[in-house]
Amino acid sequence: MLRRVRVYEVWVRLREGFETSFGRTLERPALLVRVEERGGEEGWAEVVAGEGPWYSCETHETALHVIRDYLAHMLPAEVEARRVSEAFSRVRGHEMAKAGLEMAVWDLEARLAGKPLWRYIGGVRGRIESGVSVGIQRSVEELVRVVGRYLEQGYRRVKVKIKPGWDVEPLEALRREYPDTPLQADANAAYTLRDALHLKRLDRFNLLMLEQPLHWRDLVDHAELARILETPICLDESIKDAEDARRAYRLNAAWVINVKPGRVGGIMESLRIHDLWHGVFGRPLWIGGMLETGVGRGHLVALATLPGVKYPNDVSASDRYYEEDIVEPPWTLNRDGTITAPEKPGIGVEVLVDKVEAMARRVIEFKPEG
Amino acid sequence: MLRRVRVYEVWVRLREGFETSFGRTLERPALLVRVEERGGEEGWAEVVAGEGPWYSCETHETALHVIRDYLAHMLPAEVEARRVSEAFSRVRGHEMAKAGLEMAVWDLEARLAGKPLWRYIGGVRGRIESGVSVGIQRSVEELVRVVGRYLEQGYRRVKVKIKPGWDVEPLEALRREYPDTPLQADANAAYTLRDALHLKRLDRFNLLMLEQPLHWRDLVDHAELARILETPICLDESIKDAEDARRAYRLNAAWVINVKPGRVGGIMESLRIHDLWHGVFGRPLWIGGMLETGVGRGHLVALATLPGVKYPNDVSASDRYYEEDIVEPPWTLNRDGTITAPEKPGIGVEVLVDKVEAMARRVIEFKPEG
Amino acid sequence: MLRRVRVYEVWVRLREGFETSFGRTLERPALLVRVEERGGEEGWAEVVAGEGPWYSCETHETALHVIRDYLAHMLPAEVEARRVSEAFSRVRGHEMAKAGLEMAVWDLEARLAGKPLWRYIGGVRGRIESGVSVGIQRSVEELVRVVGRYLEQGYRRVKVKIKPGWDVEPLEALRREYPDTPLQADANAAYTLRDALHLKRLDRFNLLMLEQPLHWRDLVDHAELARILETPICLDESIKDAEDARRAYRLNAAWVINVKPGRVGGIMESLRIHDLWHGVFGRPLWIGGMLETGVGRGHLVALATLPGVKYPNDVSASDRYYEEDIVEPPWTLNRDGTITAPEKPGIGVEVLVDKVEAMARRVIEFKPEG
Amino acid sequence: MLRRVRVYEVWVRLREGFETSFGRTLERPALLVRVEERGGEEGWAEVVAGEGPWYSCETHETALHVIRDYLAHMLPAEVEARRVSEAFSRVRGHEMAKAGLEMAVWDLEARLAGKPLWRYIGGVRGRIESGVSVGIQRSVEELVRVVGRYLEQGYRRVKVKIKPGWDVEPLEALRREYPDTPLQADANAAYTLRDALHLKRLDRFNLLMLEQPLHWRDLVDHAELARILETPICLDESIKDAEDARRAYRLNAAWVINVKPGRVGGIMESLRIHDLWHGVFGRPLWIGGMLETGVGRGHLVALATLPGVKYPNDVSASDRYYEEDIVEPPWTLNRDGTITAPEKPGIGVEVLVDKVEAMARRVIEFKPEG
Repeated sequence: MLRRVRVYEVWVRLREGFETSFGRTLERPALLVRVEERGGEEGWAEVVAGEGPWYSCETHETALHVIRDYLAHMLPAEVEARRVSEAFSRVRGHEMAKAGLEMAVWDLEARLAGKPLWRYIGGVRGRIESGVSVGIQRSVEELVRVVGRYLEQGYRRVKVKIKPGWDVEPLEALRREYPDTPLQADANAAYTLRDALHLKRLDRFNLLMLEQPLHWRDLVDHAELARILETPICLDESIKDAEDARRAYRLNAAWVINVKPGRVGGIMESLRIHDLWHGVFGRPLWIGGMLETGVGRGHLVALATLPGVKYPNDVSASDRYYEEDIVEPPWTLNRDGTITAPEKPGIGVEVLVDKVEAMARRVIEFKPEG
Repeated sequence: MLRRVRVYEVWVRLREGFETSFGRTLERPALLVRVEERGGEEGWAEVVAGEGPWYSCETHETALHVIRDYLAHMLPAEVEARRVSEAFSRVRGHEMAKAGLEMAVWDLEARLAGKPLWRYIGGVRGRIESGVSVGIQRSVEELVRVVGRYLEQGYRRVKVKIKPGWDVEPLEALRREYPDTPLQADANAAYTLRDALHLKRLDRFNLLMLEQPLHWRDLVDHAELARILETPICLDESIKDAEDARRAYRLNAAWVINVKPGRVGGIMESLRIHDLWHGVFGRPLWIGGMLETGVGRGHLVALATLPGVKYPNDVSASDRYYEEDIVEPPWTLNRDGTITAPEKPGIGVEVLVDKVEAMARRVIEFKPEG
Repeated sequence: MLRRVRVYEVWVRLREGFETSFGRTLERPALLVRVEERGGEEGWAEVVAGEGPWYSCETHETALHVIRDYLAHMLPAEVEARRVSEAFSRVRGHEMAKAGLEMAVWDLEARLAGKPLWRYIGGVRGRIESGVSVGIQRSVEELVRVVGRYLEQGYRRVKVKIKPGWDVEPLEALRREYPDTPLQADANAAYTLRDALHLKRLDRFNLLMLEQPLHWRDLVDHAELARILETPICLDESIKDAEDARRAYRLNAAWVINVKPGRVGGIMESLRIHDLWHGVFGRPLWIGGMLETGVGRGHLVALATLPGVKYPNDVSASDRYYEEDIVEPPWTLNRDGTITAPEKPGIGVEVLVDKVEAMARRVIEFKPEG
Repeated sequence: MLRRVRVYEVWVRLREGFETSFGRTLERPALLVRVEERGGEEGWAEVVAGEGPWYSCETHETALHVIRDYLAHMLPAEVEARRVSEAFSRVRGHEMAKAGLEMAVWDLEARLAGKPLWRYIGGVRGRIESGVSVGIQRSVEELVRVVGRYLEQGYRRVKVKIKPGWDVEPLEALRREYPDTPLQADANAAYTLRDALHLKRLDRFNLLMLEQPLHWRDLVDHAELARILETPICLDESIKDAEDARRAYRLNAAWVINVKPGRVGGIMESLRIHDLWHGVFGRPLWIGGMLETGVGRGHLVALATLPGVKYPNDVSASDRYYEEDIVEPPWTLNRDGTITAPEKPGIGVEVLVDKVEAMARRVIEFKPEG
C-alpha cells in the first residue's frame, strides 16, 4: 500500500561538458522518484527525460507536468508493480514519466520481497557486460585516442555515434587501429533512406550492428534498409512497446533491439519486449541507458541480467559521466569489463537521501488514492 | 519581419458538456497565437492541443512549455511561412505547438499579400462540404435522434464514434433509419488486430471509411486490416508527416487520410501530404478538426478547399460546439451543408482581440530574433 | 506456301465526319493485307492502325514502315497461321502491323480448309450480339436522341464515350430515358486515380462495365480503382497480350477484357487471351472494333463466336460508319440486333479486289522467303 | 522564341561492329536535333531511337515520321523547356522522338541563361562516375579479357549483358577473377517468371543489381521476382514516366531505376522520376545510355550529376563506341573513372555543325508556330 510519492528535481554535475544547441552545459536535470510504503519501506527510480525535446518529445518539464496533473491521480495505492503501466494506459505517450513511477514500485516490491531486483524479474547472471558509448569527437585522431582509453579501462565493446559526414572515415580509422574490438555505430536517426547506399559502405567494418539509422518514428524504412545492408539493424527510438517489437518483426525491420526501460514505459513493458523478441522470435537484445544517475543505473543492471541480453550494454560505471554519484556504493567496472549485479534487495544500492533532499530544486509530492 | 508573438491561453465555454475521465467539463482551454508584423499587420492561429494527453501526448501545458522554452528561440524574425517548420525541426514531436506558430505566419503572409488564405495556398473551391461528428451516446435511440437533428441542419455526412461494444448495433440502427446518408465510423484507435473479424462485420453498412481503427502510432497493423476489410481505411493519428503518408502508401495501410494541420505540424506539412497523397498517389483526403475555435476553424476551411479533398470535412459551424465564438462573423452552415470560404484576406474572419485579451488567463510574449 | 503479299493503302469515306485534332475528316486510311498462296487461294485482313498516334503509338505510316522494313523479311513462306506471331516476336510493339499479316494468313488457312473462319478457330454460335458505340455529342439531349435511333435499329447494348465533364450528366439522362437498356461507358483512359471518388458516382447507373478508365499502359491503378467501384472494370488498351491478361488477373485489375485482335497482335494472341481469361480464370470478354472496313469486320465476327464472349460486341453493320463497303455482301444487322456469322469459307465475304486496286494510293508487295 | 528546328539524319561509324539480326553493322543512324532561337543561339540534342524496333517500338523512321507529321505542328514557338512535353501529350508513345525535341530546348535554355545544363537542372557534382557495359562475348575467357581491359581504362563498374544460357557461368568467371569489382547484370527482358529460381542463383555473385530481367512492359512480374531474389532489381524499359515509377514503388517491383532520358520523353520527365524515386521514396537511380553520340552524351552527363544518382552510369567516353565524335572536345574518361561535367553553357561541348551538315542524309526543317 503506497503511502506517499515524491519526485525530486535535482541537477547533477557531469564530468565532461555536454554540447547542446544552446551551448556547453556542465549539469543536467535528473528526476528521482521515491515511493514510500505504509510499513516504511521505500522504492526509488528515475525519470530519464532530458532537459530538452531532442531525443524524444519528453522533457523534464513535460514529465513533471504529466506526473503532477495526470499520473499522480491514476496511480492506485494498492498496486502490483506489474499492473502500474495499465493504470496509466489512457495517457498517450509520456513513457519516461510513467516509467519513473513504475520502476520505483518495482524497486519497492523487490525490497519488500527481500530479493535483488534482477532476481525478482527473472535475471540469470550475476555480472553484466558493459560497453561504452563515445560521442562525436573533434577529430578522427582524438576519437582513436578516446576509444583506446576506454578499452584500457576494460569496456567490452565500443559504440560510436555517427552522423552524415562523420561515419566512414572515423570507423575506418578505428578498424585500422583496433581490428578485433567489438564495435557498433549509433546514428540516432540522422539518416534517411536516400543514404542507403552510403550506409552500405559500413558493411565492410564488421560492425556488431547499426543502431537507429533512420527516423525515430519509423519501422517501414528500416525494413527497406535491412534488406540492403549486411550489418544487422538495431532499433532504439522506433520501439516504444512490445507491439512495436511485433511490428518490427513482421516487417523484418531489425535484428536487435536496444531496450531502454524509460523509453518503453518501464520494467513491465521491457519484460514484455524481452519475452516476445527473445522468447518468441529468438532474436537478441541489450540494455541501453540515458545518462542515468546511480539510481536509474540500478534498474538497467537488473534488466541486463535477462537471458535474451546477448550483447554488451550501454551501462557504464558511475564515473563515466558523473563527478560523484548519489548512491552508495557507486557503480564500478570490474577488471574484465563487467558490472556486478548486487545481491542486496531491490536495485541493490542505497540512495543518499539527505544529499538528494538538499540538492532538490523542486519536489512534487502526492498520496496515491484508493 | 515579425515584431512580436503572443500566445493567449483562454478558456472557452462549450455548448454541450464534454465527458472526460475526471467528469463533465463545460469549458476547454484554447491557445491563440498572434504574430505581429513590423508594419502592423497581424496573423492568428490556434494551438489545438487539448487539456489532457488523451488524443496525443500534447497538452496545453506541454505546448506552452515548448513554445516558451524552445520554439520562441528558434523562430527567425525574417521567415517565410513555408520555412517555419524547418526552423523547428530539431524539436522532436510537439507538432501542435509548432503548428500554432506556423499557421499564424501563414495567416499573416496571406493578409500581407491581400489574398484569402485558401487562394494563397492553392485552393480550388469557394465552398467546402461540412460533415458532423457525433460522439458516443447514451443509447442507440438517442444516437438516431441526434443524427436526425444534424441531417436537418444540412450536414452532408455523419461520422459516428465507435468503440468495442458500441459499433455494429448503432451503425445498424443508423443504416436502417438513414439508408442513403453518407456515413463513416471513427474508432480513435480503440481496436486491435485481434478485432479484425469483428470489424469485418462493418463491411455491410456501406461506410465511406473506417477511421483509425488501430493503434495511434501504427501503420503495419492497419495494412493487415486493410487486406481483410472492404471498407476503406482512413488514418488520422498514425500520420504525423508526409513521410508517414509515403510509408502508409508503401504498405497500403490506408486509402484516405484525415489531415489535421495541428497534428502534422501546420499548413506546409499538410500541403506536402496533400501533394503526395493526392497529387502523386491519386488518393483522397479530407480535413479533420480538433474542436477549434473560429480562429483555427479558418485554417481548416482554407485547407478544405484543396483539390485532393474529396470527402466532407469535420469542419462544422461555430455553434456546433461553442456558445459564442471569438471571431466575427462566426462560421455558419449554408443550407446545402457547405461552409463558404471567405474572400477577405487571410483566414477571412476578424479575431475579437479585446475579448481575447480580456479572457486570457496566461499570455506568453516573445520577440523573434535575427 | 505463301507466294506473294500485298498491302494496299486505301482511303475510305466515312458516313459521319470525324473530329480530329486537325479538324473534321471525312475519310480515313485503311491498310488491307492480301496474302496469296501458290495454289491461287487468297487471304485478306486489315491493319487497324489509325491515321495518327492517338489510340496507340501506331499509325498507318509506322505500320507501312515496319511491314516493309522488318516484318516482310521475317514472315516465312511456309507458315501455319498459329505460328506467324512467333516469327515476329523480336519486333517490340507494332501489334497492329503484325496482326494485319497474321490475320490474313488465318483467313487463307480457313479458306484452304474449306471452313468458315469462326468454326476454324472454335466458335460456338452462328449469330453474334452487336452493340453500338456512341461518341461525345454536342448536348445531352442530342445524345439521348442518337441513342434512341440506334436502339430502334436493334443494337443490343449502348456504349457511351465519357470524359471528365461529360460523364455523370449524360449517363443520368440516358438512365432516366432508357432505364433497362444494357449500357456501358468507355473512358479511353481519360481519368486518373485522383478521380476515383468521382467515378464512384457512376455506380448508381447500373452499367454493364466501365471501360479503360485510367492510363492506357496501366494495370496497377486499375486494380486500386476496382477495389473502390462496384461497376466492373473492363480493360482495353492496357491488355496487349495474354501475359498482360494474367497480370491483370493477379492484381484483380479487371473483370472483363475487350479483345481487339489488332491491339493484341492478331487472332492467335486473341485466342490465348480467351483461353486464359475465360477458360482458366472464368471471366468474360467481348470483341471490340477499330472502325474496320468489311474486311477486318470479318475477323471480329469470327472471334465474337467464341464461348467466352459474354457481352454484346463493338461490331456493327457496315453502314454504321461507311458510305459503301469494300466487301460483298456488306455486314448487316438482323432485326434482333445480331449479326450472322457466315457459313462461307474464311471470313465469309468477298473482297471487291478491283475496287481495292483502283482505290489504292500506295501498295507494298513482297515475297515471303524460305 | 524558337525560329527554326532542324533534324539531321546522320550515319556514324562504330569502332567495333555491332551484331544485328541482319548481320554485322559498322554504322548506325543518329538523329540530331538543332533548335535555333531568334537571337541566334542554338540548342542541340539527339533522338536515340535505334535503327530497328528491338529495344522499343521506336525506330529512326518512326521518329522522323512522328516529328514531321505531328510533333512539328505541336511545338509552340514560345515555350519553356519544362513545358515542352505537355505540348506533346496527346501523342501516345514515341517518347524518344519527343525527347529529342525537348532536350534541344533544354540545351538552348541553359545556354541563354549562360549556365551549364547540369547546374541549370539542379545537379550537385562536377564529376560523374562512369561504368562500362559489355555485350555478350564469344566465350567466357574473351569476356574476362574484355572486362579486364575496361577496368584498366578506369571504368568504375562493369555491367554485363546476360541471357538464358549466358548468365551463371560468365558471372562466376568474372567474380573469380575480379572478386571486388562492382558488377551488375543486364538481362534486357530476356527472362520470364518461369526462370525465377534460376535467376536466384545469381544472388551469390554479390551483384549491384539485376537490370530488367523480365518483360519490357512489365511491373507485376518484377514485383514477384523481387520477393524471391536478394539481388536488387533495376528497371529500365518498364519505366516510361514518373507514374510508372510510382506504380513500381506501389508494387515494390524495383529498388533502382535506370533513367534514360530518351526512353521517358526527355529531361523534364527524368527530373520528375528523380524527384519522386529519390526525393520522396528514398531510392537510388542512375543514368543509362543508348549509344548516343557526343551530343546526346552531354544530356546524360548533366542528368548524372543529380543528387539521387547513386551508382556509376552507363555514360562512357566517346571512344568507347565511335571512331570520331561530332562534338568538340570529345568526352573523355578521367584517370579515376569519372567524366567531368563541363562548366561551359548548355551541354558544354560544341557541335561540329559543318561536319553534321556534310554527313546528313536527310534533313527535316520546320518553323514552330504561334
